[in-house]
Amino acid sequence: MSLEIVPIEGIGAVAPGDDLLSILGEALGDLRPRTGDVLVVTHKIVSKAEGRVVHIDGDPEEFKQAFVEAEAKSIVRRRGDLIIAETKHGFICANAGIDRSNAESGTMILLPEDPDRSARRIKQRIDHVFGIDLAVIISDTFGRPWRRGLTDVAIGVAGMAPILDLKGTTDWSGYVLDVTEVSVADELASAADLVMGKAAGIPAALIRGYQVPAGDGSGSDLVRPPSEDLFR
Amino acid sequence: MSLEIVPIEGIGAVAPGDDLLSILGEALGDLRPRTGDVLVVTHKIVSKAEGRVVHIDGDPEEFKQAFVEAEAKSIVRRRGDLIIAETKHGFICANAGIDRSNAESGTMILLPEDPDRSARRIKQRIDHVFGIDLAVIISDTFGRPWRRGLTDVAIGVAGMAPILDLKGTTDWSGYVLDVTEVSVADELASAADLVMGKAAGIPAALIRGYQVPAGDGSGSDLVRPPSEDLFR
Repeated sequence: MSLEIVPIEGIGAVAPGDDLLSILGEALGDLRPRTGDVLVVTHKIVSKAEGRVVHIDGDPEEFKQAFVEAEAKSIVRRRGDLIIAETKHGFICANAGIDRSNAESGTMILLPEDPDRSARRIKQRIDHVFGIDLAVIISDTFGRPWRRGLTDVAIGVAGMAPILDLKGTTDWSGYVLDVTEVSVADELASAADLVMGKAAGIPAALIRGYQVPAGDGSGSDLVRPPSEDLFR
Repeated sequence: MSLEIVPIEGIGAVAPGDDLLSILGEALGDLRPRTGDVLVVTHKIVSKAEGRVVHIDGDPEEFKQAFVEAEAKSIVRRRGDLIIAETKHGFICANAGIDRSNAESGTMILLPEDPDRSARRIKQRIDHVFGIDLAVIISDTFGRPWRRGLTDVAIGVAGMAPILDLKGTTDWSGYVLDVTEVSVADELASAADLVMGKAAGIPAALIRGYQVPAGDGSGSDLVRPPSEDLFR
């Protein structure tokens, strides 16, 4: 079955204290969301609505560095201005997820306090308004150690299992797949980014026609446990 | 604009020596590919058609380990049976890309010798048959150091630049983006995987409605140069 990725227009700028749940509900109206749809929302508008914004005091680069050091659970690598840090959620990413793009002038945006809670709240409201059962992903843009360029990943999840576990299923040739876990939540986040884009001002997308793995997972399911980590 | 991802049905099993270009051309017929479409093909059928298949001699796990060591340019990490290796193309992935899933019994599949050349050949044929100009991505499934689960990435590219460079463009708030390079080829590969899936037997997908970055890039554009690598 084909899959459709629809950009959600009309959300506009979001400021601290804005009622993001109502804004999303309204913007989704014309699309008539259905059970089984996946709503992907970039964390930027979630963080803004939740007030996770700081005002830069002094030199922006110095302020950011000091803030990253204070916010990070640990610093994983550092070269020049670049800091790869572990956030308190366990995500490993540049600047502990703190970012100036799509922020108001003179401010920086932090990650949501609890992206899974943010995803659940959005799901509850949208499910209630439209009488449906949809999946919600909060996305962010991460780098990768050995590949150039950024891709979007899932940092908060509600209404689905973020990983599709194919262990024990057979492929078409009859071979039993062993350690095959697919991070479909990250693939959905990346797919949604193709219609959003940092420069386009579209902060959310609806994905239709994808059968999500059933379950009640979270974004932290996608964090590799430190005991399995060969690269820290 | 919405984006559509269409699974390409009817390709079936591919064996060494098969004329993959004709098989793809035929399978695409009903979809009437258009200029601007992106054709994503999993490397498995490309490798098979190109004869990049080895017959396992002795214990499969021992044979695989020995073969990985022989094929890899370097071994990056190792724990138990798991080998993270650099392929001769520069990709860093498990088992240097050698895989038993979707292989005939008693065989293993290697990466294509030159995935960019494979992508160019497919593009040339499909462009010629349908009188169009499309982009082609050869995909593979890679793990990530800090995130659980696999996602599909682009290892071969033709007819597009794999990275969208937003440097110098402004976001909606007027902030000038600096080091923002988006790996759209990897995002397209991940999006295509959502309709393919290892277990479903669909080895290719057509993505419609995405405006690819113009250019004549390659899969190796996505390999981070060792000089910028903090994690090897």
